[in-house]
Amino acid sequence: MSDVPSRLAELCAAVAPVDEAARAAAHERSDGQVKPPGSLGRLEALGAQLAAIAGTSPPPVPGRPALLIAAGDHGVHAQGVTPWPQAITAAMVGAFCAGGAAANALADVVGADVRVLDVGVAADLPDHPRLVSAKVAHGTADLTVADPMSAEEVDAAVAAGADAAAALIDDGCDLLVLGDMGIANTTASAALIAACTGASAEVVTGRGTGIDDEMLAHKTEVVATALVRAGAAGATVAAGGSAAATLAALGGLEHAALVGALLTAAGARVPVVLDGVISDAAACVAVAACPAAGGYLVAGHLSVEPGARVALDHLGLAPLVDLDLRLGEGTGALLAVPVVRAAGAALDRMLLLADLQP
Amino acid sequence: MSDVPSRLAELCAAVAPVDEAARAAAHERSDGQVKPPGSLGRLEALGAQLAAIAGTSPPPVPGRPALLIAAGDHGVHAQGVTPWPQAITAAMVGAFCAGGAAANALADVVGADVRVLDVGVAADLPDHPRLVSAKVAHGTADLTVADPMSAEEVDAAVAAGADAAAALIDDGCDLLVLGDMGIANTTASAALIAACTGASAEVVTGRGTGIDDEMLAHKTEVVATALVRAGAAGATVAAGGSAAATLAALGGLEHAALVGALLTAAGARVPVVLDGVISDAAACVAVAACPAAGGYLVAGHLSVEPGARVALDHLGLAPLVDLDLRLGEGTGALLAVPVVRAAGAALDRMLLLADLQP
Repeated sequence: MSDVPSRLAELCAAVAPVDEAARAAAHERSDGQVKPPGSLGRLEALGAQLAAIAGTSPPPVPGRPALLIAAGDHGVHAQGVTPWPQAITAAMVGAFCAGGAAANALADVVGADVRVLDVGVAADLPDHPRLVSAKVAHGTADLTVADPMSAEEVDAAVAAGADAAAALIDDGCDLLVLGDMGIANTTASAALIAACTGASAEVVTGRGTGIDDEMLAHKTEVVATALVRAGAAGATVAAGGSAAATLAALGGLEHAALVGALLTAAGARVPVVLDGVISDAAACVAVAACPAAGGYLVAGHLSVEPGARVALDHLGLAPLVDLDLRLGEGTGALLAVPVVRAAGAALDRMLLLADLQP
Repeated sequence: MSDVPSRLAELCAAVAPVDEAARAAAHERSDGQVKPPGSLGRLEALGAQLAAIAGTSPPPVPGRPALLIAAGDHGVHAQGVTPWPQAITAAMVGAFCAGGAAANALADVVGADVRVLDVGVAADLPDHPRLVSAKVAHGTADLTVADPMSAEEVDAAVAAGADAAAALIDDGCDLLVLGDMGIANTTASAALIAACTGASAEVVTGRGTGIDDEMLAHKTEVVATALVRAGAAGATVAAGGSAAATLAALGGLEHAALVGALLTAAGARVPVVLDGVISDAAACVAVAACPAAGGYLVAGHLSVEPGARVALDHLGLAPLVDLDLRLGEGTGALLAVPVVRAAGAALDRMLLLADLQP
């Protein structure tokens, strides 16, 4: 890319592997608690993962979750891959700021702060306390005809996400929840997931927030076209390209921002909850750049978007919640926050069998 | 049973069907909110159920969940259906009171009060602020050889559960979470589920909190023996018997208490979150006695116990969480509490598309 170390490279270098000794200690502790071993099911492995992330058992119980919604627009919108007008992206940023979107309602239930990060909305947005303005471009270029982002734009968007996550963590956030807003961003997500996993466009492309069979066939062709273009340039992970090149060739500004946010949290040993196919795609890119970051990831939910399953399988993650959501914004991830906290709380608070008074 | 109206009959008479007009109004509201229709998946039907329960749309968002753990011992323990000593029931009641069980840790995460109801623990328990003492008997009789409870014991335990739930609701509880503690109670639960659904002992009997193949075969025989005895006496719902007779012939004191608690909540239009196979069994009995109560039930999670799936299918309920839990205590139901609150909050708080500023 250039002789100057990229922000992406710096973030990757700061991520240490999770602590397997702490994970083992957590499992041992759990097996001695007042329950039959294994009876808390997947909470036990999740609690042990929190220990591995924190490097201590029992781990601190996450008490300050924060949702970071990265927002951007997509040149591929011009290809007719969604029935929604592009202006919805900006309108929904307004709804997040007003506290009236699904993400706000769910964030309140689980006690999460909400921040919206504008890295690429194709409109000028008014200031708001919930809005972090770090616009890199007014949307990306159309990925069917050209790289949607330049290398410089990728690094700037990665840096914006990293800075926003760092600010949340400095402010006390100990569980980072990833969300997104961007009309047409399931198209770019499908392309990124295919580029990282080698899966075909047919396997990863889905109906997003709701399209008919004809539009789905067209969207799948759009993804396939983009993959051919990027693959021919060697700009996909599956074809030996770098994570940064993959982002530039197929991604959105919000994907790049989520990569930066994810790696920043991992570098600070803060667990990250993935939402649907957009953050799953960002996670595939981040882990391609920095395999150690995978240990910090929790799959919040299973989106109905087919690429989500492909991405999570690739990452070796099993979703905690499966309630047929396909909204994005971080809504699925937010529903998993209490599960993560429960896993930590059980490990931290339960008596040991040895302490039980029969 | 007798000429005096039973408490069970009184509770059933007080349950009104849920409000289908409010459910329809909630779906209409949801379809107009700032999201593609259907994109919140199962949260949308759940929110509409809350509206149907409350009789108004949008419904109030449950803000005061309470976990009621009904505890009792079982004569069938003598048959060797579990490796755990019976004294664990009393010891775990102590752990709940001390705040050191899994249920306490998870209740704290979701903001639920915890009350333990002793209706049948085979030990005298010291007073504690979290303990509601309403012991009907020091455990039940062995269901393989005789009815585990008399009709009077059933009604007393139903009344104890009803009174405990009424006290919680009077105190502000607006979401009742059912839990249980009773060594050997998966055996009685399997028998109750078979008796209500007509399923065989082989289909409903499972490994509880962890038994080997040999003990599972024996436990299945125990359930089958009990079903033959109860069926011959006409004392199962599947054989035309009453819900009360089924409880007397096969149930536990904590099952009867949960039936009373569930019906009390339904009578007060308070939603009820079921936990695992014990509360699922109680729900089968309650709905047999009072079909209208089914509308107030939410399946918190899917226990790995096979009878749980049979019971939920019979009740027409789909679990919200599936994390391989098999502990009981209310732990699975507690994990679903934020999902229930999220469904209500989304319906209540989200802007309408008509309000969106593009």
